[in-house]
Amino acid sequence: MEKSSTYNYNVEPFTEDICGNLAWGNLGNLILRCASLHAGEHGFGYPQMIKLHHAWVLSRLVIEMESLPKTGEDFGIETWVDRLYRQFTDRHFSITRPDGTPYGHATSIWALIDTETRQPADLEQLPNGGFANVLIPERPSPITPMGRIRMKNAELVLTHKAAYSDLDINGHVNSIRYIELLLDYFSAELLREHPVHRIEMAYCLESYCGDTLEVYHDIDSKNADRHLFEIKCGEKVIVKGSVQL
Amino acid sequence: MEKSSTYNYNVEPFTEDICGNLAWGNLGNLILRCASLHAGEHGFGYPQMIKLHHAWVLSRLVIEMESLPKTGEDFGIETWVDRLYRQFTDRHFSITRPDGTPYGHATSIWALIDTETRQPADLEQLPNGGFANVLIPERPSPITPMGRIRMKNAELVLTHKAAYSDLDINGHVNSIRYIELLLDYFSAELLREHPVHRIEMAYCLESYCGDTLEVYHDIDSKNADRHLFEIKCGEKVIVKGSVQL
Repeated sequence: MEKSSTYNYNVEPFTEDICGNLAWGNLGNLILRCASLHAGEHGFGYPQMIKLHHAWVLSRLVIEMESLPKTGEDFGIETWVDRLYRQFTDRHFSITRPDGTPYGHATSIWALIDTETRQPADLEQLPNGGFANVLIPERPSPITPMGRIRMKNAELVLTHKAAYSDLDINGHVNSIRYIELLLDYFSAELLREHPVHRIEMAYCLESYCGDTLEVYHDIDSKNADRHLFEIKCGEKVIVKGSVQL
Repeated sequence: MEKSSTYNYNVEPFTEDICGNLAWGNLGNLILRCASLHAGEHGFGYPQMIKLHHAWVLSRLVIEMESLPKTGEDFGIETWVDRLYRQFTDRHFSITRPDGTPYGHATSIWALIDTETRQPADLEQLPNGGFANVLIPERPSPITPMGRIRMKNAELVLTHKAAYSDLDINGHVNSIRYIELLLDYFSAELLREHPVHRIEMAYCLESYCGDTLEVYHDIDSKNADRHLFEIKCGEKVIVKGSVQL
């Protein structure tokens, strides 16, 4: 079996944003799906892990796109894992045209949490060697890792009460819904003129149905195109992120 | 070419709701996609119509499900059109298991609007006979049409400011987002205990980025399991709908 896998999709009607590009939210969910499918093929998928009282938890997600596929276009998402280090593993993605040239890339960091103790598992000590045999150490992240989110003049820009349609199978607000909340800061007109180039997300805590999520915004003092965000529930920081136009 | 078409899908990870069923929002968008794909195959898809300054507008959508496919399961959506009548056409759907037995069905009513004059086209007078040759008059709607929405004690239960992630390629709030807004009235716990059986939607007016949408709720006086809703923007009624548990 190949160590990396490629999953093929088509931008079907009603998966686009206002510009006719595959919507970022749909791209984000496809990236998570591919992570789950690839892990499943190698014996470490969500259904396999939950039987062992473990669940994958997304810690970081960075997506950087030169452009996005448009309605009717075929595209592929290739995913692979280059390394394990104690409680974390790095998983990368390339989003490609049918001729293999990339639209863009993504990188992510995951932990495997014991669902009873909430403690992370040591990924280097998994039974049967874990998935050490699928690592591709010679293919590191194709994009730079997440930068710092230093907010100096954070301003509350949006409040959202987490509800049923925000939840995933774990009963938590879906990781990609937070990306949509950040994008909802911008007007449709602005995003039409200035497409999103890069999104960075650091997932700190889970949030649940009924939680009131407050989105705070600031501009990166070193890069006026980089918008910084924090999503808080009361005093707790749920997510830190950035959107670069 | 067959007059009906079936599109095959799989419930991939991160398309489920908290119960592990295909999420209603994802099912709804797949239904719209299949409508668009089928229309496109017969020369009446969105890209073909927009060149002629026309666009399909969804007027009614009813979805009734005995159960929903779960993670990893394959399912098909068959769609066909049974009739045209002046400015409207009825399109139906069956959501089926691989063995052909139905999970449930849907029915919808569409108009074709001139994007410049906003007037509906007469679907019986389309060039080249329109799509009269794909009608299947002997296959009417498999489910009962939409009932009345009579709200006596409407109560404001949710306010949502329409934003970028709610919009479709036309720049309007996506029809299925309204379904999610209605479902967000319910707690995750309630929907886990009492699965949604039937959703009815009547689309009255479009809404746009920045609109403040107010969701009003009441209980059907003749059926305590049938929740009635209206989504308003100021005094304008955008959507009327119901959710039956």
